[in-house]
Amino acid sequence: MKIALAQLNYHIANFEGNANKMIDAIRKAEQQQADLVVFSELAVTGYYPHDLLERKEFIEKAEQTVLKIAKECTQVAALVGAPSINQSPRGKKLFNSAYLLKDGQVETVRHKSLLPTYDIFDEYRHFEPNRQFDIVHFNGKKLAITICEDLWDEQPTQNEFGKDKLYTRSPLEELSKLKPDLVINLSASPFSYNQENWRKDILVKKAIKYQLPIVYVNQVGAQTEIVFDGGSFFLKADGSIPVELAYFEEDFQVVDTENPQPKHQNHPDYIAKIHQALILGIRDYFQKMGFTDAILGLSGGIDSALVCALAVEALGKDHVRGILMPSKYSSGHSVDDAVKLAEKLGIRHDTIAIQSMVDDFETQLAPLFNKLPPGVAEENIQARTRGILVMALSNKFGNILLNTTNKSECAVGYGTLYGDMNGGLSVLGDVYKTDVYKLSHYINRNEEIIPHNSIVKPPSAELRPDQKDTDSLPDYDVLDTILFNYIELNMSPEEIIKQGFDSETVLKVTQMVNQNEYKRFQSPPILRVSSKAFGFGRKMPLVARYH
Amino acid sequence: MKIALAQLNYHIANFEGNANKMIDAIRKAEQQQADLVVFSELAVTGYYPHDLLERKEFIEKAEQTVLKIAKECTQVAALVGAPSINQSPRGKKLFNSAYLLKDGQVETVRHKSLLPTYDIFDEYRHFEPNRQFDIVHFNGKKLAITICEDLWDEQPTQNEFGKDKLYTRSPLEELSKLKPDLVINLSASPFSYNQENWRKDILVKKAIKYQLPIVYVNQVGAQTEIVFDGGSFFLKADGSIPVELAYFEEDFQVVDTENPQPKHQNHPDYIAKIHQALILGIRDYFQKMGFTDAILGLSGGIDSALVCALAVEALGKDHVRGILMPSKYSSGHSVDDAVKLAEKLGIRHDTIAIQSMVDDFETQLAPLFNKLPPGVAEENIQARTRGILVMALSNKFGNILLNTTNKSECAVGYGTLYGDMNGGLSVLGDVYKTDVYKLSHYINRNEEIIPHNSIVKPPSAELRPDQKDTDSLPDYDVLDTILFNYIELNMSPEEIIKQGFDSETVLKVTQMVNQNEYKRFQSPPILRVSSKAFGFGRKMPLVARYH
Repeated sequence: MKIALAQLNYHIANFEGNANKMIDAIRKAEQQQADLVVFSELAVTGYYPHDLLERKEFIEKAEQTVLKIAKECTQVAALVGAPSINQSPRGKKLFNSAYLLKDGQVETVRHKSLLPTYDIFDEYRHFEPNRQFDIVHFNGKKLAITICEDLWDEQPTQNEFGKDKLYTRSPLEELSKLKPDLVINLSASPFSYNQENWRKDILVKKAIKYQLPIVYVNQVGAQTEIVFDGGSFFLKADGSIPVELAYFEEDFQVVDTENPQPKHQNHPDYIAKIHQALILGIRDYFQKMGFTDAILGLSGGIDSALVCALAVEALGKDHVRGILMPSKYSSGHSVDDAVKLAEKLGIRHDTIAIQSMVDDFETQLAPLFNKLPPGVAEENIQARTRGILVMALSNKFGNILLNTTNKSECAVGYGTLYGDMNGGLSVLGDVYKTDVYKLSHYINRNEEIIPHNSIVKPPSAELRPDQKDTDSLPDYDVLDTILFNYIELNMSPEEIIKQGFDSETVLKVTQMVNQNEYKRFQSPPILRVSSKAFGFGRKMPLVARYH
Repeated sequence: MKIALAQLNYHIANFEGNANKMIDAIRKAEQQQADLVVFSELAVTGYYPHDLLERKEFIEKAEQTVLKIAKECTQVAALVGAPSINQSPRGKKLFNSAYLLKDGQVETVRHKSLLPTYDIFDEYRHFEPNRQFDIVHFNGKKLAITICEDLWDEQPTQNEFGKDKLYTRSPLEELSKLKPDLVINLSASPFSYNQENWRKDILVKKAIKYQLPIVYVNQVGAQTEIVFDGGSFFLKADGSIPVELAYFEEDFQVVDTENPQPKHQNHPDYIAKIHQALILGIRDYFQKMGFTDAILGLSGGIDSALVCALAVEALGKDHVRGILMPSKYSSGHSVDDAVKLAEKLGIRHDTIAIQSMVDDFETQLAPLFNKLPPGVAEENIQARTRGILVMALSNKFGNILLNTTNKSECAVGYGTLYGDMNGGLSVLGDVYKTDVYKLSHYINRNEEIIPHNSIVKPPSAELRPDQKDTDSLPDYDVLDTILFNYIELNMSPEEIIKQGFDSETVLKVTQMVNQNEYKRFQSPPILRVSSKAFGFGRKMPLVARYH
C-alpha cells in the first residue's frame, strides 16, 4: 500500500487555511498515486483549540470542513484528525477523532481512547474516551487507527513520583487481537528536547512487541507556547525506521509500506534543536497572529542579544528593532556591546536615555517615600520606565515586544513585573541561563554575532552601582541544577540537598521559586522547549503556604 | 445519629493550620457528644492544590497530617477529605478520598468517582476515578460516602451545546442498591451567583429520588480566584432542608439526623451575595498571602471607588491607601470625587500629578514618533505612568495593588496592559459594568459612601479630551448582554443577533473579545463570581484565527 505522510503546519481555528493545505496535499498524493494520505491529530482545527471546543459554531465549522475535504477525496482516501460529536446522551460532548474520507464522503470515524490530561495536555476537559476497539478495512488491508496518546499507555517520565504513570487500558493491546496489518497514528506530539527520543523509544517498542509496522504522522509548527517538531516516520515491525520526515518544517512523503524507499534526517544535538524550536516559535507566533515586526530592549547583556539574534533569524533583519535604554548605572561597554550586536545584525536601533524620567519619578515620589533608603522600588522604576518606552514604540508602530527573561530568572523572580517581564512572547522563559550561554556560542558557531564581551562579562541587571546577579543568586551552574531538579524532576528540597548541594542555598532557591508564582502568573506566553515549562503546563496555586 | 458539620476555611498546603482547625472542631464535636464530624473535600490540603499534587513530599505531608488528625479521633469519629495513593500500578497516582478516622486510626477510605474536569475544575489531571461502590458501616448505620461531583452526574448548565453534560456513571445509583441509611457528601463547591440554587436543586432531587437524607458539608473561604460560600446543610429524604449553615463564614453545627433542630439562613439577593463574595475574596487573598495592606489608584470613577469601598470592608480603613494621579485630561470633579470617597472612607490618600513624567516620555520619544498623530500610544503612556507610581509605592511599603478593571472592560480589552491592568488581584474582573452600578448602589444602601457623582457621570477613561467609554463601546446595558450571551451562554454571534441586537455591534464586540485574549493572558487573578469568569476556567488559544 502507498501511504502519503502529510506533515503540515496548521493554524488554530483557521478552517479555510487548514483545509486548503490539506487539499493541496491530497492533490500531491493523487499525483504520486498514493492509496491513502494521513494527516495529523485535530488537523482541521489545529492542536489545541482549548475551549473553542465548547462553542457550537466552532464544532459545526469543523464538521463542515471535514465534509469539504471529503469531497476532494475521490482519487485518494484520507485520514483526517478532527473533533466529532458524541451521540450518546451521556459523557463528554465530543470525541477526538480520525475520519476516513473516501469516494467523496466520510467512510468511517474512529476515536481516541487515551486522553492526555497532564502537563500541557487538557483533553479530558473536552473529549470522551473511546472504549470500543475495531479495525478499519481498507484496500484489502486491516488498519489499526490510533491517535497520538493511544500508543503511549506506558510512557516514560523523569519524575520518580510520576514514574508509573500508566493507563488502565492499552488500545494497541486490544486492537492487536484483531490481527491488523498496519498501525496508523495521527499525532500532535509537541517538541521538548527529550521528546523525539521518548517518542521513538515508545513506538519502536510497540512495533516490536506487536510485530506491526506503524505509520506515524506528527504536525509541525508552533501554536503560541507549544512547538511541534514534525519528524513523522514509517516504522517497520522489526523496529527499524526506514523513512523519516523533516524536523521543524512541513514535509510530505509517499511511502510504499511493502518496499519503502529510505529517507533519513540529520539529528542535531539538543542545543541545535532548541535553536530551531525557538526560531519556529517566534516565526509562527508572528505569522499566525498577523504581525510582522518585533521590538526589544537591548541591554548589552547576553539574554537580549540572544533573543535579538533569534528574532532576526525568524523574522528578517528589517523586521526587528532594538532600543537601547541606558541609565546612569549602565556601563559604557554595555552600550557598546548593544550597538555592536545591532550593527552586526544590521537592524534598526535607537537610543533613549531613561535618567530624566527616572529622576522625575523619584522627585515626585520623594514626599511619599519618607527618605527611606533606596532599594527594590527604585530599581523597578528603572525597569518599568524602560517598559513604558518600548511599549510606547510598540503601540505606535505595531512592533510586538519580545520578552528576554530566561528560565532561571523567571524561576526565582529575578525580574520586574510590568518592566522587563513585559512582552507579547517570552522567547527564553523555558531556557536556563546555562543554556543561554550554549545557545549564544551556537549562534556564534561560524562568526561572532553576539559580541564576545556580552557572553563573558559577569551577568548584571545594572539597576544599582556594581550590581551582579551573583549578589543575590548562586552561580548559574549551581542554580540551574537545583532548579532543574526541583522543577523538571519534581525533587523535594531534601532530595536535592542529598545530591550534595548546600542546604541553605537549596532552601533559599526553592523558596524563591514558590514565592514568585504570582509574578509568573502574569508572564507572557513562554515558548516551551523542556518537558516542564512555566505556563499552563505547570499550575501552581498562588495562595499556598508551602515550605 | 449525631453528626457535626464542620464548615471551615482552609489554606492550601498549610497542613499545620488546617489540621489545627480540624482538631479544634473535633474537640467541639466531642463536647457536643457527636458520633461523627464531617469535614469538606480535600480539607487537609485545601481545595485546589493543583500541581502540588504531583510532588511526593506534598503527598507525604498530607498523609502524615491525616494520621495526626486520626490520633485525635478517640471520642468521636471523623470523615476527612485528603488525597490518597492509588496502589495499582496503572492509572493516575492518586485518589481524591474521604478518610474515616476512628479510635485513633484510619478505619477506611473511600474515593471520588466523578472527577470534574471543566471550567475551573481540573481533577482528572491528578486523580484516578473510583469504580468500586460500597457502603461504610458506622454505629449500626449504613453510610453512602460521596465526594462533591459524585452527586452531580446530571448537572444543569446554561449552555445549550453543553446542556446534556451527563456522566456515564451515577455513583448514587450504584450506592443506593446497597440500601444505605444516609448519604454523606464532602464538598468543595465554589461560589457563583447561581451555584447555591443549582446545588440545592441537584441534591434535593437526589434525596427525593433515592428517598435518602443527605449530610452536605462545603468549605468556605477564598483560594486566590475561587470563593467557597459554605452553606452546608442537612437534607431530609422528603427534600426539605431543616438545617443550613452560614454563608461566607466558618460555621459548625451538630445535627441529630433523626430529630434535627431547625436552623435556617437568610438568602440575600445576588448583588448582596456578590458583595459578600468579593469581600471574602479580598480578605482571604491578603490573609493567606501574608499581606495586610492594599493600595489602589483613585480616579474619581465608579470602578476604583467600588474597589476601594470593598477593600475597606475587607481589610479595614487603616489598611487601604488611595493614590490620586490626575493628568491634564482629568476633570476637576474627578479629583473632588476621589477625595470625597477617601475622606468618607477615612483612608490615607495622596496625590501625585503625572503630567511632568508624561511630558518627559513624550519629549524623549518625539524623535522616534515621527510626528505621527497622537493616539493609543500616548494614552497608554498616561496609564503606565500611573502604573509605575502606584507600583513604586507598593514596592516601597508592601501594600498590594488592587486592580479595578471590570469584566466588561476586561472582555473588550478596554484597559492598558502594564498600566491600569496591573495588580496583585483583580476585584471586579468578573463583575460586569451594569453590576458595578448595582453593587455601588448596594454599598450606598444606608448612606452615601461612593459619591453620587461617581455613579451618575458618564464613564470615561479620561486619557484624551472629552473622552467617553461610549465613543468606542455600545452602552453598557447592551454591551453586557452581548458579552453575557457570548461568554456565559456560549452563544454564537449569529444567535445573539437573532435575539434582536444590531449585527454590526455584535460582530464588533465579539471580535474585540477574541482579539484581546492576549491582554487577559497577562491579567492578575480575577475573583470569580459568575459561572464563567476570565482566568483558568476559560482557556482560549492566543494564536487562533477565529471570526
